[in-house]
Parts: sequence; structure tokens; C-alpha cells
Amino acid sequence: MSHYFPVGSVKVIAVVGTGTIGSSWATYFLSKGFKVKAWDPSRDWKKRITDFINNAWPQVQALGAVKPNQQNNISLCSNLSEALSGVDFVQENSPEQLELKQALFGDMDRLLPENIIISSSTSGLIMSDMQEGLSSAHRFVVGHPFNPPHLIPLVEVVGGKNTDPFAVDWAIDFYNQIGKRAIKIKKEVAGHLANRLQAALWREAVLAVKNDLASVEDINAAVAMGPGLRWALMGPHMIMNLTGSDGGYQKMLENFGSGIEDWWETMNENPSLTPDLKEALINGINLEAGNRSISQLEAERDHRLVKLLALLKDTKNSNK
Amino acid sequence: MSHYFPVGSVKVIAVVGTGTIGSSWATYFLSKGFKVKAWDPSRDWKKRITDFINNAWPQVQALGAVKPNQQNNISLCSNLSEALSGVDFVQENSPEQLELKQALFGDMDRLLPENIIISSSTSGLIMSDMQEGLSSAHRFVVGHPFNPPHLIPLVEVVGGKNTDPFAVDWAIDFYNQIGKRAIKIKKEVAGHLANRLQAALWREAVLAVKNDLASVEDINAAVAMGPGLRWALMGPHMIMNLTGSDGGYQKMLENFGSGIEDWWETMNENPSLTPDLKEALINGINLEAGNRSISQLEAERDHRLVKLLALLKDTKNSNK
Repeated sequence: MSHYFPVGSVKVIAVVGTGTIGSSWATYFLSKGFKVKAWDPSRDWKKRITDFINNAWPQVQALGAVKPNQQNNISLCSNLSEALSGVDFVQENSPEQLELKQALFGDMDRLLPENIIISSSTSGLIMSDMQEGLSSAHRFVVGHPFNPPHLIPLVEVVGGKNTDPFAVDWAIDFYNQIGKRAIKIKKEVAGHLANRLQAALWREAVLAVKNDLASVEDINAAVAMGPGLRWALMGPHMIMNLTGSDGGYQKMLENFGSGIEDWWETMNENPSLTPDLKEALINGINLEAGNRSISQLEAERDHRLVKLLALLKDTKNSNK
Repeated sequence: MSHYFPVGSVKVIAVVGTGTIGSSWATYFLSKGFKVKAWDPSRDWKKRITDFINNAWPQVQALGAVKPNQQNNISLCSNLSEALSGVDFVQENSPEQLELKQALFGDMDRLLPENIIISSSTSGLIMSDMQEGLSSAHRFVVGHPFNPPHLIPLVEVVGGKNTDPFAVDWAIDFYNQIGKRAIKIKKEVAGHLANRLQAALWREAVLAVKNDLASVEDINAAVAMGPGLRWALMGPHMIMNLTGSDGGYQKMLENFGSGIEDWWETMNENPSLTPDLKEALINGINLEAGNRSISQLEAERDHRLVKLLALLKDTKNSNK
């Protein structure tokens, strides 16, 4: 039984905490026609979020029909109470500090009717720890986006021990309805799922540097010029399904399963990020970057990412 | 000192073994204007490679200026000796069986002048094992492509104990000159590099099924709708460099390094591909695929992959 505010009726969203993630969420919600009420306790946050939205607006415009005036449907509020007043959903993006989140959650819990879902962007904390002792703990969920949320579709949704399963379903439904791809994480684990998958790949990429298997630049190419091209199109299980050709996943597992199990036995080292190893990683990346600054590299990434997302949208279910 | 056939003068290439990988290599070499001499010991190989090239030709056409008649610059030879006669480079793609490769390598070694480089597409075998006892072992290298070679740029080049380092450099130079992205693998390890990186990610994706963290379909989305979008644009080290924002890789390592080391400690399980786990993987992927056949899924992947490669080419060094 769900007594929550109806998913399809959400019109006003509070964005609490407006660092990079919060500002990016605000951009996305505005682009989808929502009214946003934002608040952050830091100094200069109003200028920073305004700059962020102005910079990101052409990107969200490139990805869909967005009316120019939607950009202005944001209220920059003076305090938390004002930001939460009259909202239908909350996306929380405060710093990753447990005590800070616990205090903030307590305030939000008192200020909001208990039928309003509160979703946390936390990447590193566990909802069960954050929601402990709240009177309406049931409506708190994790809705972890992948940076930057105004571009990357993925949102990982997971509840804590005291979260109502209907609240988890509500959040998944809501994110999917507004154009994200929400996935249900069934258990609370550190890093949720996508960051764990990324950490698994990065570990092997760090080991390749530690063991001097290839240069940092070549290791990057080993992904971006190889399997990475497929990972933008389909996930690891679907790739293996197609590796089996006509026989699908079953044939892949029969033909290659035990061979890969043998490889795994040679891939059990956890590299320690010593000063020497860090230096090798940093030197390698500086060599590859050459005279391109971080902001140039970011601009290059985002330019291509917007085009990639448009391509994927255009070819969705083309499937001819 | 390199006394090998000059890289820039290569005009005729032998493709030995014409399964999927060999046929795809042949397509790529033809598209780049080379004359190809092909041979395979199996029945019906001439029809299969002809069908493959016909199917793949529109894809290579979409990716560059290709003259229609180039497609016909292939000789389907009656035996190995005929296929190797007068060639300037060999790409070998026989089945992954050590004794078979050893015998074939011996034949090729006798039939070819010792200044001709012979490159093996092997994904699972080690050159030091394959080249043992050959009189001109020095010119044998691994040039491992990523499937399908006519589309994916990556080629991993590695030599065996008896390979001349100049032969490795020759192959890297050659592949790069014809539009591939060759990387130098400095040590012989099972799976080279890209397949190990892929296996590391897949292991965590299999564990997520085993531990019931999420559905197979959601795990796929956790990559393809999240980090996978970036992996098509840059490798894992460059992504971490940009995760550090203005502070680059150094700041990322300072801020997140020890946290990820902690995650790694929880990611040390090697899942055993038991019948139950295999069944969960297969059932999950069948649920996601629905009524789409493997060949429909392949066509969808290749349709998008060609567009993705064209996008990456168009935006290369656009850098803004």
C-alpha cells in the first residue's frame, strides 16, 4: 500500500545541497519542466549553481525539447525550511559525512509531510546508518546518480533497513518517468553497484601499471579503443551473451567460462596505492594529457558525451 | 637494427585461418587498399569469408573512403604455400590449440623469407610457447585484435621470449599506420591486457548476480547507462584523472584512494561458475533479450557501433 505523493503529480522538487551533483540534478529537473527549490549552507552557492546551470543548459537542450524559460523555474532559498515548503520530492546532495547527513535528515523529517519521498545522492554512505532513529525513516531512499546527473542516465536506488519497499519502488518509478534509467539495488553494500564495477576495472588497470604490463596511455587505449566501445552500447552480461554467438550466454560459458575462471585466479592482488605507485599513475596520465588542461579534457569529454547520448537515443530500438 | 620488409611498402597480406576473426581482418585489410591472400583448411570457408565480407562491407564503407572494387582484391588460395607466396605480412587466425599453432608456425617459418613479420591473433596462447624451436622465431609476434577487427581499433602487440623487439615495434608501427590503435604489452600474461580488464569487470558483474545484488538486466544498465558511456570516450586512468577535477589524478588518489582500497578488500571473491550460477546468468539475459534473437541483438550492436566509431572520428581532437 503506497500512500505517497503520486509519482505523476510531482511538480516541485527540493534540491538540498548544491555542489556539483546538486547543481547538475537541478539542471536536469529544470530541463524536464519541474520547478526547483534549492538551498545550500555554503557561501557563494547561489552564484555557483547559477553558473553551473548556464553552462550546462546547452547540453540538456541538445538532448531534448527544452523551453528556454524552464531554466528560470528555480528558487534559490534562504534556509532549509523555505526550500522544503510545498515540495513534492527531495533530492539531497550534502557532503559525504554521516553525522552531517543524520542531522540534516532529522531536520528534513520534521519539516516534511511523511508522504514525501526523500532521496539521497550519497555514493559512499549506507541508508540504514543515516536513517536510524528518524520518525518517518520509511520514506528515505538512496537515489545515487552517476556524475554528471544532467547527462548520465543511471540512478541506483536502494533502501535501508527501515525503508518502506514501496518508497524504493516509488523512486524507481519516478526516476524512470523523468527519463533516467533507475536500477534496483537489493542490498546495501559499499559503493552500491556501478562504482564497484568501476573499481573492479580500475583495480586491474592499476595492477597493469604496478606490474609494468603497459604504459598508462596504452592501458587507457586498451579500454577506450576496445571493450569500452561496447560498454557504451550494452552491459557485461549482454556482451558475453553475444560472445557466444548463436549459442548465446550458455555457449559462451561452456567455451570460455573455465578459461576465465583460470584468469581470475591470477587476478586476486589488491594493489596498495603507495607513493611510488601513485607517482607512476600521475606521471603516466600527465604524459598522455600533454599540454591539455583538465578543463580542456573535461570539455572534450562532455562534448562527445552529449553526442554519444544523442546517438544512443536516436538509435534506440532501431533494431532493424 | 631492423632488416624487416619496410612497413610502408606492405601491399600484399596473407590471412591464414578465416573464421570470424580472420574474415574480419581480411575485410579490414581490403578496406585499407591491401591485396589479401586467404587460406583456411576447413570446408566451405570460401563461401563463408565471401559472405562475411559482403555483409561487413557497408560498415567499413560507412567509416571511411573505400572504393567498391577494393572488396575484390582477395585471392582465395588452395593451400598455405600458395597463400604465403609473395606476401609482405601475415595475420594468422587459426584455432586456439597450441600443437596446431606450433605445426602451422613451423610451416609458415619454412615457407616465408625471414624478413616477413608473422602476427598471430591468438587471445589465449603465449607466443613463447608457440614459437619454441622455430628457426626464425624472432619475427613472430602476437597482434591480438578485439572482435570484430574490421570495426574495433584496438590491437594488442606482444612478443615471446625469442621475438626480436624490433619485430614488436614493426607490428605496432604497421597497425598504427593502417588506422588501428596498437598498444605494446610488455609481458606475456594470460589474456594479454584488454581481456583481463574485461574479465575483472565481468567477475564483479557475475558476483552481483551470485549475491543477488541486482537483476542481470539492471547490472547491464549499471554499466551501459553509467560508466560504460565514459569508457567509450576515455580509459580508466583518464576517467580518474578527471574525477579529481582541477586537482587531477593526484587529488582523486588523495580523496578517494583509500576508500577504494577498502572496497577492494570486499571484492576478492572468485565466483565459481556452478550450474546454478550459470542458470541464473542465462535466465537473466533471456529475460532481458525478450523476443530479440541473437542476430537481431548483434545487428543492433553493430549498427550503433559503426555510428559510435564515426562519432569518435568526427570529434577527434575537436577538443571543445
